[in-house]
Amino acid sequence: MTKKAIILLSGGLDSATCLAYAKNKGFDLYALSFDYGQRHKFELESAKNVAECFNVIEHKIINIDLRTFGASALTDDIEVPDADKENMGKDIPVTYVPARNTIFLSYALAYAEVRNCFNIFIGVNNVDYSGYPDCRPEYIEAYKKMANLATKSGIEGKKLSIHTPLLNLNKSEIIKLGINLGVDYSITHTCYNPNEQGNSCGKCESCVYRLKGFKEAGIKDPVKYSF
Amino acid sequence: MTKKAIILLSGGLDSATCLAYAKNKGFDLYALSFDYGQRHKFELESAKNVAECFNVIEHKIINIDLRTFGASALTDDIEVPDADKENMGKDIPVTYVPARNTIFLSYALAYAEVRNCFNIFIGVNNVDYSGYPDCRPEYIEAYKKMANLATKSGIEGKKLSIHTPLLNLNKSEIIKLGINLGVDYSITHTCYNPNEQGNSCGKCESCVYRLKGFKEAGIKDPVKYSF
Repeated sequence: MTKKAIILLSGGLDSATCLAYAKNKGFDLYALSFDYGQRHKFELESAKNVAECFNVIEHKIINIDLRTFGASALTDDIEVPDADKENMGKDIPVTYVPARNTIFLSYALAYAEVRNCFNIFIGVNNVDYSGYPDCRPEYIEAYKKMANLATKSGIEGKKLSIHTPLLNLNKSEIIKLGINLGVDYSITHTCYNPNEQGNSCGKCESCVYRLKGFKEAGIKDPVKYSF
Repeated sequence: MTKKAIILLSGGLDSATCLAYAKNKGFDLYALSFDYGQRHKFELESAKNVAECFNVIEHKIINIDLRTFGASALTDDIEVPDADKENMGKDIPVTYVPARNTIFLSYALAYAEVRNCFNIFIGVNNVDYSGYPDCRPEYIEAYKKMANLATKSGIEGKKLSIHTPLLNLNKSEIIKLGINLGVDYSITHTCYNPNEQGNSCGKCESCVYRLKGFKEAGIKDPVKYSF
């Protein structure tokens, strides 16, 4: 019997690697992406390309309007700052989108229930990350407990698993894992502040973590930068 | 200092009563409704009227497309059945929308965080209800634990409360409470299967619970029925 999994796919480096990991474990994949008014729509193009590359069964893109609430540099008119390299990971940055992973996982839960699927993969990472509260293992564990009380299938005893294979890897380990699993990182998109051609800025926190990861892995980052 | 609360407002009997309860407790109210492709759009008109009646500070209506996933009589092309009065509450009915309350609460959580608010009211009910898993107290408790790990404010020690004042009331008790709090039930909407004029069918589970509640409360239901 084939196993099915929902994979949350942003089109970034982490979620592409997570998808390749799930595929390698033999899951039939149902990818889920969100158009949430993020400035970097290039992410969604990347998500489509990654989904196609790995032959997912289905790829759904859900429109959700987090701009209604505002208050994040990713959805609002706040400027995305250059990374403060000394203090990265210490404070929660302005790129934090309120309850983002909670909303994303809730849609994944609905999708999983409708497709009769008991596995969700999410590429959260607790090492080279930006201090977002909803990337921590205790959050994921609490989400899973809640989810198993929320659904018809949970009540019927079919327990949902939330897989976080990247949780304890640093960025260079994630990249090396992805290369081994056949991820083409040239089609991923990471930058919070790309130029009109989609070239990455190299200065935002997200770029800085990515570049550091490729450097440490001893591999050249194949995406285009605007510097 | 005034207290702020997010109130999930469907426009039905329960959420209108819950809103009146929160107002009576002195909260400044931020109402949140969802246009989720439900067949009974009359609900949203009712939500607007209830919000206006009780002078909420703000009323947001979020578009979410649960039809993308399908599989519920409320969002899909499945027929809403007449209530099976002998077996109501025993099985989870076809009107169950996958992960609905989980998605709704997740948006409420984002809204609460952006408005710097630490209270959410939801009119779930564990007595005269249809057996939905996400209306049970253990679900709400697990949601709260997860939410306090998900957010910046939770990390900073400002704990979120999820208030469920109707949890243990039966329908007639809810109606009596609402009447005392000044709810005009003629502007609420409960039916899953209204006719074109918005008149209630009187036969779906939701109507049957409502009519039973008014009967037991010894009050005439002021909404129009099509029979």
